[in-house]
Amino acid sequence: MITALLLIDVQRAFDDPVWGPRNNPGAEANIARLLEAFRHAGKPVIHVKHDSAEPLSTLRPEAPGNAIKPEAAPLPGEPLFSKSVNSAFIGTGLEAYLRERGIEGLVIAGITTNHCVSTSTRMSGNLGFQTTLVSDACATFDFHDDEGTIPAETMQRIGLAELRGEFASIKSTDEVLAGLK
Amino acid sequence: MITALLLIDVQRAFDDPVWGPRNNPGAEANIARLLEAFRHAGKPVIHVKHDSAEPLSTLRPEAPGNAIKPEAAPLPGEPLFSKSVNSAFIGTGLEAYLRERGIEGLVIAGITTNHCVSTSTRMSGNLGFQTTLVSDACATFDFHDDEGTIPAETMQRIGLAELRGEFASIKSTDEVLAGLK
Repeated sequence: MITALLLIDVQRAFDDPVWGPRNNPGAEANIARLLEAFRHAGKPVIHVKHDSAEPLSTLRPEAPGNAIKPEAAPLPGEPLFSKSVNSAFIGTGLEAYLRERGIEGLVIAGITTNHCVSTSTRMSGNLGFQTTLVSDACATFDFHDDEGTIPAETMQRIGLAELRGEFASIKSTDEVLAGLK
Repeated sequence: MITALLLIDVQRAFDDPVWGPRNNPGAEANIARLLEAFRHAGKPVIHVKHDSAEPLSTLRPEAPGNAIKPEAAPLPGEPLFSKSVNSAFIGTGLEAYLRERGIEGLVIAGITTNHCVSTSTRMSGNLGFQTTLVSDACATFDFHDDEGTIPAETMQRIGLAELRGEFASIKSTDEVLAGLK
């Protein structure tokens, strides 16, 4: 089975303080390790970034925050899909790209766990791709609701618990790297 | 704008003790109130149920648990879509049905908040439908991960916080009913 690494929204905009407290500062280092290992193994790497249509978003295409972080920068020839909603599968042609190349497995990492990563992971699993989400190569932020603030660590834990077994296998970077060898 | 009520997986199987502790025992009563109000207002009502392909699932088509609960039972002529994954939009023809009828808004309720309801709400918002999720007309169960048990109340709170503002407006049944008048 052909398995690709799918990196979602590893973009500079998420360093903006407007996002508030974040969990897992090591996510980018783990993403860099995954990227190096997939490239070294000759396995496909697919990049997705968010081109926001919101006029004030730091993720709009002309904003500096739209740039992909150095740890996840695509190499020439690696495919890059731009999206304007949370799911990497909506409005992008990603599903057709995967089917045409016989890619049946996806290892997913990126930002944020609860929004774009969760939504893309849910669709990946529901579309029939054998899906792995890399828990320590994702990150999220504090959320807020009528009851108050929900810490990023809690958002991450529940965000992963929702996906586990139902949409994806949840693995650490070390577990994924061990499986590549 | 035409807005439809979309009821997801309000099926008897969720009464099986295998699911463990549940939050919001009033969900079905609120679903019944929504259904009565949409029918009374002459607005479209759309039913979705889960036909599991898992041999041991209580949601498989031939199992008694596959039946829709009386509070949400479709009337003759109301559309019923069957799905075999979490998203009501995958493998069902639901999106084409909505587009053909000019339905641009969806009010969503059902079971479970974190799996099929969240996934369908995410796709609804990402596909461009003006989406409302009815917080007290959804329910979920205790989840488990490596750290232990996560109570259904916590799963519900975080499940709604993830969707709020990004994919959907979160409203109570009372708020939705007031908006129909």
